[in-house]
Amino acid sequence: RPVQKAELVRLSQTLLHVRALHWVVVEDAPAPTALVGGLLAASGVPFTHLHAPTPPEIQRRPGDPPWLRPRGVEQRNRALQWLRDTRPPSEAAVVYFADDDNTYSLRLFEEMRSTRGVSVWPVGLVGGLRFERPLVAGGRVVGFHTAWKPERPFPLDMAGFAVALPLLRARPAARFDPAAERGYLESSLLGGLVTPAQLEPKADNCTQV
Amino acid sequence: RPVQKAELVRLSQTLLHVRALHWVVVEDAPAPTALVGGLLAASGVPFTHLHAPTPPEIQRRPGDPPWLRPRGVEQRNRALQWLRDTRPPSEAAVVYFADDDNTYSLRLFEEMRSTRGVSVWPVGLVGGLRFERPLVAGGRVVGFHTAWKPERPFPLDMAGFAVALPLLRARPAARFDPAAERGYLESSLLGGLVTPAQLEPKADNCTQV
Repeated sequence: RPVQKAELVRLSQTLLHVRALHWVVVEDAPAPTALVGGLLAASGVPFTHLHAPTPPEIQRRPGDPPWLRPRGVEQRNRALQWLRDTRPPSEAAVVYFADDDNTYSLRLFEEMRSTRGVSVWPVGLVGGLRFERPLVAGGRVVGFHTAWKPERPFPLDMAGFAVALPLLRARPAARFDPAAERGYLESSLLGGLVTPAQLEPKADNCTQV
Repeated sequence: RPVQKAELVRLSQTLLHVRALHWVVVEDAPAPTALVGGLLAASGVPFTHLHAPTPPEIQRRPGDPPWLRPRGVEQRNRALQWLRDTRPPSEAAVVYFADDDNTYSLRLFEEMRSTRGVSVWPVGLVGGLRFERPLVAGGRVVGFHTAWKPERPFPLDMAGFAVALPLLRARPAARFDPAAERGYLESSLLGGLVTPAQLEPKADNCTQV
């Protein structure tokens, strides 16, 4: 999509400000495209360009509403596989799943650097709310402010958490479930990694959006 | 609007890459707001925060389509006034009108630095086309590729031109016309500054989008 090119350019301009960042871009395509490859090469951001086509049985059909099926599942799982297969075992990196149509505060990337397991923070403009956020007491996550399916084990948006790479290595089976019900995609990964009580609150105990 | 805050953050991250840039932000409000002021102060971009309320007689009414009235006219004219009134007469700056919901290539800002009068280049994803652009022959603009109202004197999008500040000083009456018909806002300013033949094509004779 032409709009996607503009969104990738904009995201690359944000990421170019972040030190020690490696951008893993997974295209939903049978092979990497020259358009995306050229854009990444011109961006100035260190990157790896992967691809993973969405299987035909879960592709959107004409007329499907955009929220019917979780999007980007195969692509995110391909990135997890690449991280586990190719990065040095000692690498103490932090993994974050960015969407190309979101806005990211530069401070967010500093907040997540100290993640030891799974860290969380508030996210603005999701789920019909001005923000969603974990509720924190005594330095622990004790609940979630969300308007949508609060019964989910991890009522978090993809933009609201980061995972330490060593934890992803220690739990090699943890991944996103392509069959997850709507809203449960984040929970499908996080449930294989931590309990809600183990979440690490960032952004001043989840008070800064 | 909360979305506007996210768009301003994103635009600030783009502008933070551009050397020797001064960001003039004109709020459509009776006074500058603390929300925008705080965001600008935190952005790291040198800025001036102005305000200009849209007069009641041209404000959008509920049910008006968004394209009915030209938007941002009072605000852009306030910026022109500030440039003429407060910047040093010798300043050889280049003025560009950025919208907070567009994506800007960093190369664009380098292209426009050499503007002596009014420079032009292609713009993607406007007017229902994948791109619009001036047509160039022998280094001169000889026409325009546009799908919409090609009879306009300057069928250009706001994102597709920049003006040298000395030219704005030399033509003190040039401004955006609040009464301009839809699509003619750009022409109302540019018609007071140059003829189409005087436009300076950038981006490799307007071949790079």
